Amino acid sequence: MSRIYVVGLGPGDEIFRTKEADAALKAADIICGYTLYADLIREQFPEKEFFTTGMRGEEKRCAWAVETAKTGKDVAVICSGDSGIYGMACLIWEMAEKAEDVEIIVVPGVTAAVSAAARLGAPLGHDFCVISLSDLLTPWEVIEKRLFAAGLGDFVIAIYNPSSKTRADYLRRACEILLKEKSEDTPCGYVRNIGREGEEMKILSLRELMDAEVDMFTTVIVGSSSTKVIRDHLVTPRGYHRWK
Amino acid sequence: MSRIYVVGLGPGDEIFRTKEADAALKAADIICGYTLYADLIREQFPEKEFFTTGMRGEEKRCAWAVETAKTGKDVAVICSGDSGIYGMACLIWEMAEKAEDVEIIVVPGVTAAVSAAARLGAPLGHDFCVISLSDLLTPWEVIEKRLFAAGLGDFVIAIYNPSSKTRADYLRRACEILLKEKSEDTPCGYVRNIGREGEEMKILSLRELMDAEVDMFTTVIVGSSSTKVIRDHLVTPRGYHRWK
Repeated sequence: MSRIYVVGLGPGDEIFRTKEADAALKAADIICGYTLYADLIREQFPEKEFFTTGMRGEEKRCAWAVETAKTGKDVAVICSGDSGIYGMACLIWEMAEKAEDVEIIVVPGVTAAVSAAARLGAPLGHDFCVISLSDLLTPWEVIEKRLFAAGLGDFVIAIYNPSSKTRADYLRRACEILLKEKSEDTPCGYVRNIGREGEEMKILSLRELMDAEVDMFTTVIVGSSSTKVIRDHLVTPRGYHRWK
Repeated sequence: MSRIYVVGLGPGDEIFRTKEADAALKAADIICGYTLYADLIREQFPEKEFFTTGMRGEEKRCAWAVETAKTGKDVAVICSGDSGIYGMACLIWEMAEKAEDVEIIVVPGVTAAVSAAARLGAPLGHDFCVISLSDLLTPWEVIEKRLFAAGLGDFVIAIYNPSSKTRADYLRRACEILLKEKSEDTPCGYVRNIGREGEEMKILSLRELMDAEVDMFTTVIVGSSSTKVIRDHLVTPRGYHRWK
């Protein structure tokens, strides 16, 4: 029985990868992924065969991985961050629905919400939501509904894909929805290029976030009503408890 | 300047740990944590000094870590899963508010929502919430409000601390709230003892989940309206897109 490993690499650098991910990459006959992510690991696995495609080549890569695994080869499909959270694991499961002789092993990784939170302090110390602002595959009304519900529930919110060239005002629109339930002084933060060269982070208010310049390599975190700023970092205490 | 590393170990086994976590444990003079988690790594670091306390000893451990770091020693505070998500990072930041000469480094790890999702398939393929049912530090009304909002937003939901001896019916109460917005056929799943001996998982409907026997070592995932079951695994496609 051949295998497809769907591997979360974590943020950029090798140091953020789990040993399970390394073991899966080592075990695979071929590594398959988006060109940019493949380049991140090529040096570490010089003996491996690679199959890469560019941006938006997800379906092509996954279809190729399933067909190749059917021929008896073990394939590792790589994703940045986690392999399941907006990652390739879903597409692989969908495409391998009938390929019962191919075993699918999802190898988790540190997703951007978690690595961005670590840089910003401890904003995910209590209940939170993860929402992508990309409407490439999701109607904007669904995204709006989720933003509203996340505000209503007083969740901390991690926002993926906050902006792109064709969606320059999406973060502003998201902030406007969140402001229906959240104070404009709510502490927020963002991290750009986590674990890569040029990493930068900023702590700011929800009001300031509206005009922040973010790109598709940025992860944004919006606090809950109990999130506070300590030593220029975001902290959401667990519950409403206070130690003293 | 001394350091406190707040380190997420990931689920049980060493293989799920990042290299960054290992490096932090190695760099620290003393490792501090809950006895059970300390025992998981003791063998790997036989030369290290350990400071451990039992369950609910969080505040004592964190206060000890801050005081010890103030004396110039580097301390690693360990957490299972991630160090920020319901982890010790918040408490360390709060307690070290005035200890400006102690540098705090949060080292992220694979949290239970992500590792459980990987075992169950790819349920977190689209927007999701993480909610703890523990009312030890959070009023039950806040938890109820969040469950309701999560249902309203049609999020996939990862539930932490779904039950304990004193809260035997909490998961049932949570399911009742979710059923206001979600169908009773919604695909759900749970994983017990992720990455540890005796790991077990189950796929079931929201109706069946109401009567499931879960404990505090179980992570539960409740699907969204687009979550489906493929080859006995949960899959939430990204958006409402269908490849063909």
